[in-house]
Amino acid sequence: MGDNDDSDIIEHHVDEAMEKRQRPSHHRTHTHSFLDSVTSSSSEREGHSSTQSSHRLLAFSDALISIIATVMILPVAHTKFKEGEELTESFRVLMTTKIGVYLVTFLIVTVAWAAHIRLFQVIERIDDVLALLNLACMMLITFLPYTFTLMAAFPDKILGILLFCACVMVIGVIQAVIVVYGFSRPFLLNEQIQISENQAYYKQHILKVIMRVPIMCLIASIFTIIFYQLAYVILAIVIFLPYITQALKWCRGKAIGQPVEETPESMLFYSYHPNEPLSKERVEAFSDGVYAIVATLLILDICEDNVPDPGVVQREFGGSLVGALHAYGPEFLAYFGSFATVGLLWFVHHSLFLHVTRTTRLMGLLNTFSLAFVGGLPLAYELTTEFPRGSRNNLEAVQTSCVILFFAGVFQLAIFVASLFDERRTLHPLVRYGGRDHVYMLAKLGLYPCVALATFFLTCALSEFSTSIFHLMQLGVPVTFLLLRLLVKTGLALLRALLAALRHPQQQQPQPGTGAGFGGGGDGVEARLVEVDDDDNNSHVPFSDLVS
Amino acid sequence: MGDNDDSDIIEHHVDEAMEKRQRPSHHRTHTHSFLDSVTSSSSEREGHSSTQSSHRLLAFSDALISIIATVMILPVAHTKFKEGEELTESFRVLMTTKIGVYLVTFLIVTVAWAAHIRLFQVIERIDDVLALLNLACMMLITFLPYTFTLMAAFPDKILGILLFCACVMVIGVIQAVIVVYGFSRPFLLNEQIQISENQAYYKQHILKVIMRVPIMCLIASIFTIIFYQLAYVILAIVIFLPYITQALKWCRGKAIGQPVEETPESMLFYSYHPNEPLSKERVEAFSDGVYAIVATLLILDICEDNVPDPGVVQREFGGSLVGALHAYGPEFLAYFGSFATVGLLWFVHHSLFLHVTRTTRLMGLLNTFSLAFVGGLPLAYELTTEFPRGSRNNLEAVQTSCVILFFAGVFQLAIFVASLFDERRTLHPLVRYGGRDHVYMLAKLGLYPCVALATFFLTCALSEFSTSIFHLMQLGVPVTFLLLRLLVKTGLALLRALLAALRHPQQQQPQPGTGAGFGGGGDGVEARLVEVDDDDNNSHVPFSDLVS
Repeated sequence: MGDNDDSDIIEHHVDEAMEKRQRPSHHRTHTHSFLDSVTSSSSEREGHSSTQSSHRLLAFSDALISIIATVMILPVAHTKFKEGEELTESFRVLMTTKIGVYLVTFLIVTVAWAAHIRLFQVIERIDDVLALLNLACMMLITFLPYTFTLMAAFPDKILGILLFCACVMVIGVIQAVIVVYGFSRPFLLNEQIQISENQAYYKQHILKVIMRVPIMCLIASIFTIIFYQLAYVILAIVIFLPYITQALKWCRGKAIGQPVEETPESMLFYSYHPNEPLSKERVEAFSDGVYAIVATLLILDICEDNVPDPGVVQREFGGSLVGALHAYGPEFLAYFGSFATVGLLWFVHHSLFLHVTRTTRLMGLLNTFSLAFVGGLPLAYELTTEFPRGSRNNLEAVQTSCVILFFAGVFQLAIFVASLFDERRTLHPLVRYGGRDHVYMLAKLGLYPCVALATFFLTCALSEFSTSIFHLMQLGVPVTFLLLRLLVKTGLALLRALLAALRHPQQQQPQPGTGAGFGGGGDGVEARLVEVDDDDNNSHVPFSDLVS
Repeated sequence: MGDNDDSDIIEHHVDEAMEKRQRPSHHRTHTHSFLDSVTSSSSEREGHSSTQSSHRLLAFSDALISIIATVMILPVAHTKFKEGEELTESFRVLMTTKIGVYLVTFLIVTVAWAAHIRLFQVIERIDDVLALLNLACMMLITFLPYTFTLMAAFPDKILGILLFCACVMVIGVIQAVIVVYGFSRPFLLNEQIQISENQAYYKQHILKVIMRVPIMCLIASIFTIIFYQLAYVILAIVIFLPYITQALKWCRGKAIGQPVEETPESMLFYSYHPNEPLSKERVEAFSDGVYAIVATLLILDICEDNVPDPGVVQREFGGSLVGALHAYGPEFLAYFGSFATVGLLWFVHHSLFLHVTRTTRLMGLLNTFSLAFVGGLPLAYELTTEFPRGSRNNLEAVQTSCVILFFAGVFQLAIFVASLFDERRTLHPLVRYGGRDHVYMLAKLGLYPCVALATFFLTCALSEFSTSIFHLMQLGVPVTFLLLRLLVKTGLALLRALLAALRHPQQQQPQPGTGAGFGGGGDGVEARLVEVDDDDNNSHVPFSDLVS
């Protein structure tokens, strides 16, 4: 046994480790870079063999962030109504504040999440040190919601905003450390940066972008002591400035003409361009986390609160457990209703992202908006069963549910529409404008908004039956989803036959079963769909050409 | 535009869809099966083009199940102590019941999860119908914890057990429907079953295994009406029988000699053998979910409960928010402490599974035990800050935390030990017995159990300083993890030099920096490690040969 023996074994293991590490990364087009990294690994053996694919670290971070994003819905959920009382003004103010805190938290946490994605698109492999730094970063992100609660409860006290600034500054410093550490071990970096000539420029650019936020927070926290209202303004600017300027730039570009394309070399990361790629895997993981938390939100409460006290059962219900549980009936109904709705919205999301090949930042933003509304659904559903049937509160609760459901669905639809603008890069051919499943996808995405709208207007007209209409909707939608493909096909075949007969009664025969179709749901959107689908079969013009 | 045109486009899309679908599945060794499936797809085009990789559906299911598994810890968490009072007997009984419910729920939900994994190892691709059926199945699984709460609160009422049986029966029926549906569209199935001769046998076998549980539940629910105690016994048998018989069989095999290897063809799925493969991806996803929920458990409560009322702040603290928050100090401390501990346990788990190449059912079971203890950690940590320093309750709380931490860590270590028995199939060469990182991995896995043990005995000896010792431990462990690789290397180099000097003072010189090493933590385990490592460098005998 000697030194030579030992190093041979290590060499062998390193090669195997290298091979394993290559697999999860994107398929390599240039083999020389692979060879390069293998050769360089023998000189930097120590560092290399301890690096790891970051896949699971990111999935765990996504899970943590999605929990934190939705956690502020709980204080909203646990605001209790007094039985049989009309909603008072002060109660409304309280609810509005809490909902405001929830929405702001959701937005800020998703901004932090986007920053996290950006960081780990640059640093693609991790080692133990990076994993531990990331955990520290996560710990601070999970603390952010509390600072918002403090700000909302004490808007005139500076402690909340100071805590928030402190968290953001420490997060910024940790991110900067991660970047410096990553650039000091280039094998951890994204391949394009690894082989790029101007790594130093990248490092400078990224550090500049990252450090901007903590420095602005430092300024904000100094202003807090002098004149605290200004601090809020500075913070709002810090967080949303890149998005606002990019949105303005994009709008101006659209209005005046083709915008000047910046060089891809400098714009690949940290560009804040709406077309900047966003890891699809992470958008899915984050969305899954939010949907899973939201779907189980009500069962958490049910398990804790809806077990009757044995003494009460004996005294008030004569020992009959069924009788005692009967009182909780509406809450079980709300649970199953909201689970089904959230589950089906996840199903729609899943179907959509199965056909999305590349996610952009704009699609990510629309997804965030959709998820923010999904978070409110269980509560709205709970409210619909809280009040006596036919009361004004009950009608309002049903209509609120419809509005939330509508927006949750409409933003999902918006993701699809946004992806259609650049469909060659973002969508699978099957669902592109003209693809076989294009209309089926539109029907899936359009079903919930249409149903929500229809229910809303029906309850306006027949306000005394609002609960029954709502329950009918809850029962009908899952069945519709099961039969949607069939409905789409038969519906379109029928309509096409009708349209063909109306337009050219002698020229053209209907073509049943061409595979494209639509059905199930409202009216206005579907009529448009037929038009779109018809146009498409005649011309096959890309969607973006038609619109822009 | 005609029918031909259209079908050409469809053909093209189907091919692309096929290609996309092939990618996530395992690398194919026989190309003929790929060609087969492409050819068959043109005849079954309709069914094929709507199938999808099940990856994301499973990740979502894992997220839902991990939330449900940990949810029953919340009633335990929210059991409030009365200030300054010794724990009374009735309180202990209440806590024990709740902890019992938590553990039983965790176990049963993981059994349901294992059944779910088994099912979707057979059915590898999904379509919309399967996705919707799976959501229905999930809805019922998330309802299971509630039935346990009812059973625990009313052990002599039959409603809880009837509800549980009803849920399990419906879940069983849905799973059977999924299997029948899957076998009616063979392209959804696992490839090995798809190309197997006796598909019908597989279907029979799987349906028999699946339907066993609902039928036994039906019998149990009939017994409930006659003699309810027996129903509990039947249920316990139903759920654990396969594991018990397999464990007995395995033990007998070990005791008598080599067990008779059953044919791999019939034993591939639904065998309940401890070596039956368990999807590693899903074990990771489930563990991530549990760790993420547990890490954020305390912040959920903090956000909701620890915001002081503005009126109270004005009255009692003279408007000083800092003063009011000072009272919550211990809870923030508990939050950061438990987040750091759970995060680091995740980090250890992550390091381990990065080097695990294949997961077996036994490893999955050990992982479940580890996770069940992890779930209790935040509460134990919260208790350590609840009582005045130096009181008997405080000492008990600190020691309980140490015990929970010890078991959480020890079961992680047990996963590694279990995988060493079949290291050629389950472990990456780097961490195998004799691999370069073997001792580093052992040090990582052994750190928490050792620290927990050391803290436990230290607090026994110096009971008045228990809190300080505990906080010192919380601060010291993250730093140790950051420096662990260095510590392991220097520690072993030193010890080896020492041992070499003691044993053969003239024969052999110490070899510093050979790459293998150890350090940081207790005493007994490390001494063993040195032995193991030393043996290993001399002989390179596989671990399993040494043990069995």
